[in-house]
This record gives sequence, structure tokens and C-alpha cells, in this order.
Amino acid sequence: MINEHFELLTDTPFLAVDLDVLERNLKRMADLAKRAGVKLRPHTKTHKSPYIALKQLEYGASGITVAKLGEAEVMADHGIDDILIAFPIVGRNKLRRFADLLDRAKLTVGLDDLFVAKGINDVGEARGRRIPIYVDVDTGLHRMGRDAVASVEPILEIARLPYLEVRGLMSHTGHAYAKATVEEIRAVAVEDAELLNETRTLLGKRGLDVPEISVGASATARFIADIPHATEMRPGMYAFNDRFVMAAGGAEVEDCAVAVYATVVARPTRDRIVIDAGSKTLAADPFRHGGYGHVVGHPNLTVRALSEEHGTIEVAGESDVRVGDVLRIIPNHICPAVNLADELFAFRGGELETVIPVLGRGKNR
Amino acid sequence: MINEHFELLTDTPFLAVDLDVLERNLKRMADLAKRAGVKLRPHTKTHKSPYIALKQLEYGASGITVAKLGEAEVMADHGIDDILIAFPIVGRNKLRRFADLLDRAKLTVGLDDLFVAKGINDVGEARGRRIPIYVDVDTGLHRMGRDAVASVEPILEIARLPYLEVRGLMSHTGHAYAKATVEEIRAVAVEDAELLNETRTLLGKRGLDVPEISVGASATARFIADIPHATEMRPGMYAFNDRFVMAAGGAEVEDCAVAVYATVVARPTRDRIVIDAGSKTLAADPFRHGGYGHVVGHPNLTVRALSEEHGTIEVAGESDVRVGDVLRIIPNHICPAVNLADELFAFRGGELETVIPVLGRGKNR
Repeated sequence: MINEHFELLTDTPFLAVDLDVLERNLKRMADLAKRAGVKLRPHTKTHKSPYIALKQLEYGASGITVAKLGEAEVMADHGIDDILIAFPIVGRNKLRRFADLLDRAKLTVGLDDLFVAKGINDVGEARGRRIPIYVDVDTGLHRMGRDAVASVEPILEIARLPYLEVRGLMSHTGHAYAKATVEEIRAVAVEDAELLNETRTLLGKRGLDVPEISVGASATARFIADIPHATEMRPGMYAFNDRFVMAAGGAEVEDCAVAVYATVVARPTRDRIVIDAGSKTLAADPFRHGGYGHVVGHPNLTVRALSEEHGTIEVAGESDVRVGDVLRIIPNHICPAVNLADELFAFRGGELETVIPVLGRGKNR
Repeated sequence: MINEHFELLTDTPFLAVDLDVLERNLKRMADLAKRAGVKLRPHTKTHKSPYIALKQLEYGASGITVAKLGEAEVMADHGIDDILIAFPIVGRNKLRRFADLLDRAKLTVGLDDLFVAKGINDVGEARGRRIPIYVDVDTGLHRMGRDAVASVEPILEIARLPYLEVRGLMSHTGHAYAKATVEEIRAVAVEDAELLNETRTLLGKRGLDVPEISVGASATARFIADIPHATEMRPGMYAFNDRFVMAAGGAEVEDCAVAVYATVVARPTRDRIVIDAGSKTLAADPFRHGGYGHVVGHPNLTVRALSEEHGTIEVAGESDVRVGDVLRIIPNHICPAVNLADELFAFRGGELETVIPVLGRGKNR
């Protein structure tokens, strides 16, 4: 992926993007969405980079999703003007920032609570316009939202606020990553959309028409052609892919656009290698099949433990890996790994093409 | 800890330091070390802030420890001139940076490998001076180093390099955090030092005198008076403390100097609360007693799951916590949480005294 001179560019550990793989991933998902007649609104939390968000829009995304208001500000600073903030905005300062951002971008906000909705409604009233919101429905993740039926009354109450428009129902199928087989994952995807549609149908009977059904997660995204009712999808990880997506059957090693490059700094015993990438680089997210990353080209190496700066690799059998060697590792979960990096080194055909700053890193407010 | 106007200072989530608690922690450990006749070389990876490192030196630390060369550069930029880099330095660029840094600070390097040692030796040769190193010995953590006996031959080989001085043997008792009782933790601390001393004794018989025995970890630090042979200690977390240190019996809630402040953004069901701090704020390190943080003042709230931006709290029984409330949470592991923050808001008596930039954040190279 990277030519032999990469070591002159930077010290390890660092994150490298293969731009050809990235663009192939972006095109594939855009094509899938187009064929299914569903809008693609990628979750940019995976890369946190306006550079890549703009590429996603080029490839046909209809807008983007962000995790926090601070990420939306970064994206708007770079001219992106259709943003779903998939997180409730709570607090006086945040509502002020949100109001300011409305001057620069078309914003939609995700929420599930009347108190939160009232805050957004107040901003809408001050601006003399209705602000679109998506309401979270719990389709199995048990994070935001109530179940399909219990959601109805709170949504009707929210919809009575005059400066809000309940534009969509949204869910996240993160629970699909825990499923063992492709068929189970597909079933999660279908059930998710059916549940969202159940809420929509019940709301319709009460006189509230909700146009958008917005579904998430790269684990289920590839089944979009089989998913009923959805009008929009918000996959994030598909841009880069990782061990989680591979385990869900959504990618192979050659579809993983980002890898950590790490140097072997110790091999104290035959069966133990230490690298300079720990949880501060690879992120600590555990993987149900074990290990903290896939060491490309070394099937007998398992990243067994992470300290903050050390990765401890277990060697099964023999390995000629030596101190000073550089290993390429695909993280379990690419999103938190990117959030630990200030920049991504972007290569094409082994040559450095650009350095992508992770401008949305750490924007948790 | 923070007065009611804190919300005007910043949006949540953020990390707040109680400076009175911090200074009490620094003083306590400095006193312990002094009484035991052991040098204190705190590991600054916990706070990554020259501001706090300088406080540690004021309180009597003899120097500092850092995790990576990049952290050493940050500390040297702020006038700190006695630094143990407790990590092997490998690669041409890094050795060049290390050579440059030698002009500004007295540096010691931790390593366990002859190839790595040769790189440092080359720098020493170019500079015409011997560079002090510590050699890692594996006393039970199984990360860096060989066991006490197997370490002897490699250390003798390293010691033959003319521009190195094998100044110390070092270990890390991170494995003590897995122990259930105070007595087991104390036993780890004593065994650790006995093993280091075994290596030292064997080396002495072969004609190599190693002056320093350097032991680590806040879990075992409070037993320093009972730890034989140690000449230096390198605790890090004691400055802030966290759930890990509390579980090891080393701190109570009131000794925890840093907490995450997070806002409740949803309460979709009676037993489920969602806050705006997820793994991007609290860090994902699991805790053997469960949960992802201690919610201060709410014993019936358990941070059950973290997404990147969402913390999902389980409510046992009843709770009057409402959307918009701000909760104070002590992380499982404070070090990675600090590494996710750009700054720490530092309070004294509830008033903001200063904002401490986390200048060493992300310096993993």
C-alpha cells in the first residue's frame, strides 16, 4: 500500500488511507443507495474530515450526518450545508451555537425528548422558521428512543410545537454487529425498518405524516435493496471499513481503506512482540472474536493486549518479525482510532497524495 | 466541586480538575516517597500537561517519566529537564529527534532490546557521551522485558555498548490492578522489587553494577515503605485517581481530582438515561466490577454502555434525574480520558482558576 520510503514521511504509529480503496467504497455505497432509490447521508464520524465528506457528496450523497454540534460546525466551515446532527442539543450555549449555525447550513436535529424539542422550538421561534427534526425510535439497540408503539404519543406531543417539523424517524442498527450470520444481520435490518414504519403508520392514523425513514449502520447498509420503507441511509464505517464490518460480512481486508502502521519495539520472547501502537492509537474497543486489530499478512500474530502506548502481540508458532519492522494493522473499530489521530496520511498507488487533517477530532461538544 | 455558573464556561462534556484535591494527592505521594527514601519520578501520561508536571516537581519529584518521545518534547518545551522516556526509541527520525532533545534535557530511555540499544548507542557516540538507559524486566505484566533471570545475558550484552550506561532496571506493576485484595496488591509490589533485585544481584556477580531499581504503578505506590530495594517510583494515576485506583484501595471518591461533567440528553424509559459523554470522552476501558464510570452522588445509576458519543445509564429503582441535568462521573481509567481532551478546566473552591491545556494529548510518536 505504501512505498518503501514512507518511513521518511513520519514516525510511527500513524494512520494511512488508501485513496483508491476509499473511493471504491464511496462509489459502491452511492451506487447501492441509488439503485435502491434511497438517499445516502453518510455518518462522517468515521473520518471526521471535511476532505472526505466533500468526496462523499461528490459521489452522490445528499447530505451528511454528524455526531455532535462541534462536528457540524467544522463541516459547515468547509461549505457543507446539509447536515443532520444525530444527537440532542441541550443547554443554552449549545442552542446559541446551533442558532448561529442555522445561518450557514440546513440543519436537522435528532432527539427523542419533549424538553430537548422545546429548546430547538425556541430557536425556531426566534428565527421565525420551522426546524426539521428526526425522532429516534428504539428498534433494538436500547440507546435513544422508545419502542415503536411507545414512541407515538411523545412524538405527537413534540409535533405540536409550532416551530418544529417532525421530518423523519431514525434508528441505529448498531446491535447488528453482535449477530453471528449474514441472515441474522439482514433480519435486523428488515425488522428495524418495519418497526420504524409501524411508528410512522400509527402516527399517520393520528394525522401526522412523517416523510423520512432514516436507517443507519454499515453492518446493515449493504442490504438496502431488501430493506422496506427506508427513504434514507446513514452508514459511516463503509468509507473505511474495519474488523467490525469485516466480521459482519460487509468487507474484506482489501476493502479496508485505513490501517495503522506500527513499529516493533521489542521482542523479549519468542512468542511475544511489542509494537508502538496501543489503545491511544488502535482504540480499546474489544472485538468478540478476540484481539485488538488484524495484522495484515501475518495470520499467526494476534494483538493480545493494549496498554496506552504498547500493543502486545502473541506469536503462534514461528515468525521472522524483528525489532524495527513495521506492521500494518486494521483496527477493530476505525472510528475511535481516527478520533485519536490528528491527521491521516493519504496514499495512492503507494505514493503520498495528501495529508488529511482530522478537523472533527475531539469535537464532543 | 464547581459552582452553579460552570455551565456558562463551557458546554458539556468536559473534564474538570479540583486543584485542591490534585495538590493534596501530589503532596501525599511526595511525602510517602520522601519518608521511604525513594525518588519520585511521576509518570506524566496521566495528565500530559506541563502545568501539572511542574507542580509535581515543585512538590518534590526528582524528574518525570513520559510514555513517548513526543511527550518528552512537549515537557522539554516547558523547561522540564530530567525526563525518563519509558519507551524504546526506534527509527531514524525518532533517533534524530532524540538527539536534538538531548541538547535540552537530561534523558533516560527505557528499552529491553539490543537492536534498540544500538540505535541509542549510535546517538551517544555521535554526541561523545554515554546515554543512561533503564532496562525493562518482566516481573509479571508480560509486556516489555524478559523474566528476572533471562534478562541477565541480554543486559550484559547491552552494557557492552560503549556509549550507554545501564543506569537502572525498571518494571511496571500494572498487573496489580487485577488483584482482589490489598494484601495481594502489596504482595505484587514486594515480589516485583525482589525480582528486579534478583536481576541486579546476578548482574553484580557478573561485574555490572546497576544503581537504580525503578518501580511503577499507583496501585502499588502506597506500599513504597514496605517495598525493598526500590530507589525510585513512577506512579502516574495518583495525581488524579480514578475507579481503577479506587478498586485497588488506593483512593476514595474524594481523592479523585478529575471528573467528567456530562448532560442528560434523553430519558426515554424509566430505567434508561442517555448522557452526552461516550467513549470519546470517558474512554472505553472496561472495569472488572462493571460499568464505565462512577456517577458521583447517584449510587443507583450505572453507566452500562458507551457508544462514541452516548453514555447509556441504567437506573436501578427510582431516580429524579431529568433531561438537562448535569452529572459528574469519575472515569474507569483517567489517563485515556485525559488523552481525549484538549483542555482541563481547573477549579478551586468551585471557581475556575485556570484552563490547563493537555499539550501532550495524542503525542503517540
